[in-house]
Amino acid sequence: MRLAELSESSGVAVATLKYYLREGLLHPGRAVSRTQADYDETHVERVRLVRALSEVGGLPLATIGRVLEVITTPGQDRITVLETAQRALVGGRDDGADPAGGAGPGPDRGPRASAWLEARGWQIHPSDPLIDELERAWAACDDVGLGLDEQRLSEYADHVEAIGRIDVDSVPPDPEGAVRQVVLGTVLVDPVLSALRRLAHQHISVSRAMGREPRTR
Amino acid sequence: MRLAELSESSGVAVATLKYYLREGLLHPGRAVSRTQADYDETHVERVRLVRALSEVGGLPLATIGRVLEVITTPGQDRITVLETAQRALVGGRDDGADPAGGAGPGPDRGPRASAWLEARGWQIHPSDPLIDELERAWAACDDVGLGLDEQRLSEYADHVEAIGRIDVDSVPPDPEGAVRQVVLGTVLVDPVLSALRRLAHQHISVSRAMGREPRTR
Repeated sequence: MRLAELSESSGVAVATLKYYLREGLLHPGRAVSRTQADYDETHVERVRLVRALSEVGGLPLATIGRVLEVITTPGQDRITVLETAQRALVGGRDDGADPAGGAGPGPDRGPRASAWLEARGWQIHPSDPLIDELERAWAACDDVGLGLDEQRLSEYADHVEAIGRIDVDSVPPDPEGAVRQVVLGTVLVDPVLSALRRLAHQHISVSRAMGREPRTR
Repeated sequence: MRLAELSESSGVAVATLKYYLREGLLHPGRAVSRTQADYDETHVERVRLVRALSEVGGLPLATIGRVLEVITTPGQDRITVLETAQRALVGGRDDGADPAGGAGPGPDRGPRASAWLEARGWQIHPSDPLIDELERAWAACDDVGLGLDEQRLSEYADHVEAIGRIDVDSVPPDPEGAVRQVVLGTVLVDPVLSALRRLAHQHISVSRAMGREPRTR
């Protein structure tokens, strides 16, 4: 199909597709003349993937580029690739964060988060950047007085660990499929869980207001 | 304190503080001369709140303005305010989403999400925009072939419902405190849960690789 048809099939503007092509987020089509190329289903799929990572996952295009590179390099060792994929994602959320911001951790790597993780017995490499991410998100809750202490974090973690087990169980055995599932699952399931959490709040509040469910504490 | 000191206390640049003042995100200081004003702890607290919502919560400034308005209007009825707060948040995530995007639901309001919610028995108003949010996030997972079907969504929802119960239990009885907790908890706990989920993935993968935990299915 021509670029205009790819645009129609994917719902993405031709100008945006040209931008994806220039940035290497979309692989070139098969040249049919000096100015025209032919695109196929692999292009439709790729455009859909870039859109999902960008619009729903909120990843900036630079991060998407890194993620695609990891996903599409064949014949890699499974564990290496999973680690690389996780690393490509860290800090990649387009949340307007200022990396030099004041809410971040000090020179120690997430001291409170590290202590909590150790007490919980989770196997995490001490220099894993996710520790800083947890520290930063936790500190933001403290800054506004949300009352999120170690105990409530542990209660959350019990349920998040169960969610993580569902995720890990869904990872297929082949390396390419595994990387795809890990990266896309990490980025695209978060918005699903976020919507579910807000819907759960509504359901629980309504149930309690109607006296159908007592406060549990 | 002067604006320069407020900047030091809060770690936010003077130019940014002036912008917050112009946009009404920060209340004016007490005028001490024609060109100078005095700021106090309420200003430090407010700047911290705007920063947390913006940098960690990823909310655009327009949404933060709506949220602040809801949080700071005194003497409102509890239920009304909670509903208003939830509405102020919907669609407010700065995730680069294109509201006219193709991944959204059709003319029906989130038909698949609605059917799933009804089957689950969650009490949600049929025109609640969160239903569309779930539909959109779910569709994005389908678009890239993540295999997130009704059953896996229900497994997630079991655990998310438990998380929602922890959230709702943490809401204080007074209306102002309740709104603050609901809005800030919705926005700022998501990044904590997201970091926890990725840390859980690492822990589970490492435990399984070391043979400490068998695959459960």
